[in-house]
Amino acid sequence: MSYSIADLEQLHLFYRQQLLTDTVPFWFPRSFDRELGGFLLMRDADGSLLDDDKAVWIQGRATWLLATLYNTVDKNPEWLEGARLGYEFLNRHCFDSDGRMFFHTTRDGRPIRKRRYFFSETFYVIPAAAYAKASGDPAAAYNARKVFGQCIDYATTPGLLPPKYTRERSSKGIGVPMIMINTAQQLRETIGDDRCDSWIMRWIDDIQANFVKDDIRCVMEQVSPGGQIIDHIDGRTLNPGHAIEGAWFILHEARYRNNEPRLMALGTRMLDYMWARGWDKEHGGILYFRDVYDRPVQEYWQDMKFWWPQNETIIATLLAFLLTSEERYAEWHRAIHDYAYTKFHDPVHGEWFGYLHRDGNIAQTAKGNLFKGPFHLPRQEWYCMKLLESYLK
Amino acid sequence: MSYSIADLEQLHLFYRQQLLTDTVPFWFPRSFDRELGGFLLMRDADGSLLDDDKAVWIQGRATWLLATLYNTVDKNPEWLEGARLGYEFLNRHCFDSDGRMFFHTTRDGRPIRKRRYFFSETFYVIPAAAYAKASGDPAAAYNARKVFGQCIDYATTPGLLPPKYTRERSSKGIGVPMIMINTAQQLRETIGDDRCDSWIMRWIDDIQANFVKDDIRCVMEQVSPGGQIIDHIDGRTLNPGHAIEGAWFILHEARYRNNEPRLMALGTRMLDYMWARGWDKEHGGILYFRDVYDRPVQEYWQDMKFWWPQNETIIATLLAFLLTSEERYAEWHRAIHDYAYTKFHDPVHGEWFGYLHRDGNIAQTAKGNLFKGPFHLPRQEWYCMKLLESYLK
Repeated sequence: MSYSIADLEQLHLFYRQQLLTDTVPFWFPRSFDRELGGFLLMRDADGSLLDDDKAVWIQGRATWLLATLYNTVDKNPEWLEGARLGYEFLNRHCFDSDGRMFFHTTRDGRPIRKRRYFFSETFYVIPAAAYAKASGDPAAAYNARKVFGQCIDYATTPGLLPPKYTRERSSKGIGVPMIMINTAQQLRETIGDDRCDSWIMRWIDDIQANFVKDDIRCVMEQVSPGGQIIDHIDGRTLNPGHAIEGAWFILHEARYRNNEPRLMALGTRMLDYMWARGWDKEHGGILYFRDVYDRPVQEYWQDMKFWWPQNETIIATLLAFLLTSEERYAEWHRAIHDYAYTKFHDPVHGEWFGYLHRDGNIAQTAKGNLFKGPFHLPRQEWYCMKLLESYLK
Repeated sequence: MSYSIADLEQLHLFYRQQLLTDTVPFWFPRSFDRELGGFLLMRDADGSLLDDDKAVWIQGRATWLLATLYNTVDKNPEWLEGARLGYEFLNRHCFDSDGRMFFHTTRDGRPIRKRRYFFSETFYVIPAAAYAKASGDPAAAYNARKVFGQCIDYATTPGLLPPKYTRERSSKGIGVPMIMINTAQQLRETIGDDRCDSWIMRWIDDIQANFVKDDIRCVMEQVSPGGQIIDHIDGRTLNPGHAIEGAWFILHEARYRNNEPRLMALGTRMLDYMWARGWDKEHGGILYFRDVYDRPVQEYWQDMKFWWPQNETIIATLLAFLLTSEERYAEWHRAIHDYAYTKFHDPVHGEWFGYLHRDGNIAQTAKGNLFKGPFHLPRQEWYCMKLLESYLK
């Protein structure tokens, strides 16, 4: 069954309510670290603090959220204050002397761990750009653009960052073009940058040429440098929720380009392929990992339900429905929305649990840790709210 | 209820039967790679090959198993042939030019991944030593002793291997003294080495002084360099099955030293503490991770049941019972043995599944992958068989 205008109005109200009266208040302002900067985000189900360490990805993402809410929802000075706390913590403590960023610091910003990936850097670009728009600070805009340029270098210069594997089996992951598309989209939509339009199309072309396999109806998570399937246990592993996130980044771009047919077709195909592979027909929800040939995957927890693949699928199915009016996307959206808000949402303390067993029971109760914080859920609620607003007005 | 002599005789027969007619035949000889050396061990439930890559840990452990069976169970020439295939593959393909070992190679031995740990090296020492004994090859004995010396250097020289964390939060794991105790015990019991006795006692002293916390009845998985609990989400994480493995290494040493009271008390205390923290009172079996203060742990799959913690607990409880005659160890052994052989054993194709959900359902079906192969299960069956033999004769 498709969605009526009244259904969409109700969804809009629901996401707005959840975002502003449930999700955001779980985190803020209590997580502001007004003493030492940044945020205290590693919290148990009831909001009590599990750890005062600071995960750099999550510090950047929380900063992005607060600045984005300020820019697009309400000029709430508390949100701007929070964005400044986060942005200044990132600048003061999260860069190493080589220009790379750390992954994990103490509460007072001493570095504990640095990793070989540049996701910390992309999660610096988007908050710096959003904060530049919110605050008008030209240095933040300069920094966002500078680090975006460094990310382009990391993404396009083989060997610039230490590889995980030897040259005997080089591979490339869909994560790099995906994160770069989203980073460039965010930069473009906040402070603008002439590089974004062309780079976004190059990364979309990379995904289409190398990762999307129409003959087997699949989006690969990693491939050889030439785009071949690496027929070994790691190379066969699919991450359906991640590919579906990539699908909506591309549908978002299709919409930006007046519903460009090639991008509409590519994004919906990616969603179709990975819904078929990721949706759990028995219990509902998106499974974490699958094997391209339905063999066992290396990761033993591959059938768990994590919060974020559900968030990304809620966005992708709603966006696909609004772009195409095809009934199946409304049906899928209804299925994933109902599953996720029934199983993941905590009606007692707000926000979502992060980790369920396949059957939907809670595997662990933390709302925030080194990888989970105020990002995928509030981004989903914010994105769907804004998207519906633009269709309903 | 305690164990009678008849019970122990039945257990002995059971482990012998399982080892020789179920576990070992699942793997060998079909996994021998007579063409390219080493073993093809990444297999699905029915034994079909999932991947022809070779995981260096598992190549070494399989070599150890075959040489040990040859040395201690039966002079089966097929086992010696297999041990030689594995030992030669390790020598030809698994060492980097800096003397460190790789983690993962292609079928023909081209390196795919090297890691910062030296577990590949310890899983070279024990098969080289066992193969030296089986074959009489003096070069294998020389190599085992040489790499054992390198492992001592890695274990005792801070900074020799690249650290995962910065100096801001240095830590040390119980894994290093544990693996070194077991490596030295294996070396001593095959070809002998004058360094073993004193090093074993130093590593046991390290565990007692730094990792065993009698005031809170706990064995820590990692601590600060001075032995303090690191009260952050990673530092609080316990691995009960691993600590219980450490307990039996120490009980094994107690037995070697004529039931030395201090080691008996230390090993049984470690088992007592971690049984209380790891045994799942609701579903049975040993849980994977727990938090020292019962808070959520970072790893979302912490409540899964893996095969190897059950194997280590079967050994530890049987050994504790035979050393102390205390009834509770017979009860614990019965509980873990019955749970594990009911839930993990595959009566159709033999061997055990590796990964169950907390409730005992199978999460994935692989019998062999990058981390699972012919080691913990056959070692448990072999160790318990030999142990019972020595008590029953």
